[in-house]
Amino acid sequence: MTDDSLTARILAGDVRAAGRLMRQVDDQRPGARAALDALFPHTGHAYIVGFTGNPGSGKSTLVNAFIRTCRQKDLRVGVIAIDPTSPYSGGAILGDRIRMQEHALDAGVFIRSVATRGNLGGLSRSTPALVQILDAMGYDIIIIETVGVGQDEVDIARVADTNLVIAVPGMGDDIQATKAGIMEIADIFVINKSDHPGADRLRRELKTMMSLVENPPADAWKPPVVHTIATEHDGLEKLFEKIELHRAWLSEHDRQDARAKRRIEHLIRLIVQGELDARLGRAMSSAAWRAELEALTERADTPWRAADLLIEMIGREE
Amino acid sequence: MTDDSLTARILAGDVRAAGRLMRQVDDQRPGARAALDALFPHTGHAYIVGFTGNPGSGKSTLVNAFIRTCRQKDLRVGVIAIDPTSPYSGGAILGDRIRMQEHALDAGVFIRSVATRGNLGGLSRSTPALVQILDAMGYDIIIIETVGVGQDEVDIARVADTNLVIAVPGMGDDIQATKAGIMEIADIFVINKSDHPGADRLRRELKTMMSLVENPPADAWKPPVVHTIATEHDGLEKLFEKIELHRAWLSEHDRQDARAKRRIEHLIRLIVQGELDARLGRAMSSAAWRAELEALTERADTPWRAADLLIEMIGREE
Repeated sequence: MTDDSLTARILAGDVRAAGRLMRQVDDQRPGARAALDALFPHTGHAYIVGFTGNPGSGKSTLVNAFIRTCRQKDLRVGVIAIDPTSPYSGGAILGDRIRMQEHALDAGVFIRSVATRGNLGGLSRSTPALVQILDAMGYDIIIIETVGVGQDEVDIARVADTNLVIAVPGMGDDIQATKAGIMEIADIFVINKSDHPGADRLRRELKTMMSLVENPPADAWKPPVVHTIATEHDGLEKLFEKIELHRAWLSEHDRQDARAKRRIEHLIRLIVQGELDARLGRAMSSAAWRAELEALTERADTPWRAADLLIEMIGREE
Repeated sequence: MTDDSLTARILAGDVRAAGRLMRQVDDQRPGARAALDALFPHTGHAYIVGFTGNPGSGKSTLVNAFIRTCRQKDLRVGVIAIDPTSPYSGGAILGDRIRMQEHALDAGVFIRSVATRGNLGGLSRSTPALVQILDAMGYDIIIIETVGVGQDEVDIARVADTNLVIAVPGMGDDIQATKAGIMEIADIFVINKSDHPGADRLRRELKTMMSLVENPPADAWKPPVVHTIATEHDGLEKLFEKIELHRAWLSEHDRQDARAKRRIEHLIRLIVQGELDARLGRAMSSAAWRAELEALTERADTPWRAADLLIEMIGREE
């Protein structure tokens, strides 16, 4: 199959062709690059929603319920599930199987799990390319689902149009600390499992935290708090409405363009980091490097001087 | 203060001098580099213990209790608390204050909080340098405390000699998924809050998971499960013993050298990534880049071609 026919098939929504390109991206095959270049002019139409929350928040169940809501509205949904469960093995097959059960036979839903591997932090190296592919395929909504606190969320905030932060009642002490960082990326708070004890207290805590933001601009978006019980499909309509509201707010305040620019810049940053990381890997596999490493373990050289050597090697590589 | 006197003071254990160098490292000041080079030959003596666990695991309380145990044994302790609570503000001041209360007046304890910022994943860019500084100061034990699943843990595994993974009973469904990734880095499992319901079940689950490892080498380390109630200082002696056992196992199996080599290599990787990231930041602040970004938002160029341009700019920089 030529690259031309591959991109043509992807633009026509062919999931097998998309899967093929995604594998090429994962394997860093040179051909993938040309296909992504060809797809790019056809992107920029999908609306990207980030789902982030701690383990135990019922996030996957919520994503499943949200997909159902989107499908009822005849919206096509692509899902990228960033799965940190297997940092060493690099696989996320089980996750795919579990998540796909309900929507496996629905042509309007495409689910792809991504293992977080390598040295690039939570959002895996290939995620930006996956977003581009799903976007070019014409999915209306792209969901990026991730576990974790910290860097993952920041990365998602830069990729997504609307960021959902999922909390559950009664998670204990440290959650307070987590919330502080989450505060700054949440466009919408979701209290899932809201039939559990403590849901109202959590709502009050979130509202209190939001009221502590100093001098918000008069026209700033105020993150709403939505209660859901994903297992009973409860609150999903409300959640969808709030996402629509945020989307309207973004377009009214002309920030979608600014977000699009930030997103592209972030995407490019991830591409560059991926390439530099690959070059670094090659430099660190060289014989010259192994000799340097011996000198280092004997403390005959320092890590900082060794780093200079590697950077020079990376710069020399064509 | 000259660089020479700064490093001399740090080697003598002067905490103010150390704090000063740490700030220079945080701010990426050129002088920091020479000081780190000078300190490196004096490192390699500290024993590094990673504490990782989800929010709600009572990890900070456990670290505090562990510090007390170390101090009772007259061991000096340095702590690096990787704090993802404030990804945008870059500060972790509150964390320091809370954590330092008990040990604030103890000269044998040094606690440094690090915010996770930038694009380098969970283990902040400056962490390797902080480990070096604490090591050179002569701390016997260096604790690296981190929240999170996935990349953070992998990064810690590469820096620490012994990795503790902290779990709590009754965290619900998704925790299973988390454990799969954690399995591979844990040298010791800690069930904290072990007076909570479900502690025994969690222990059985962990044991079951470990029994699923296929064909472990006969002399492989078998991660023990330790029960603690950090708030009551319960189980800390046991935990300390298990760490000592793991340390002895490492030295007996001659793997401490292999770990030391991996650690230096990982350290250098982080230094290189930090430098490349800084160069990338400078390239993305240039006027040439802003023009390119305009072309991109009009889809007149592609992110992958733009990435090539940036990599060329980074390579050209001296």
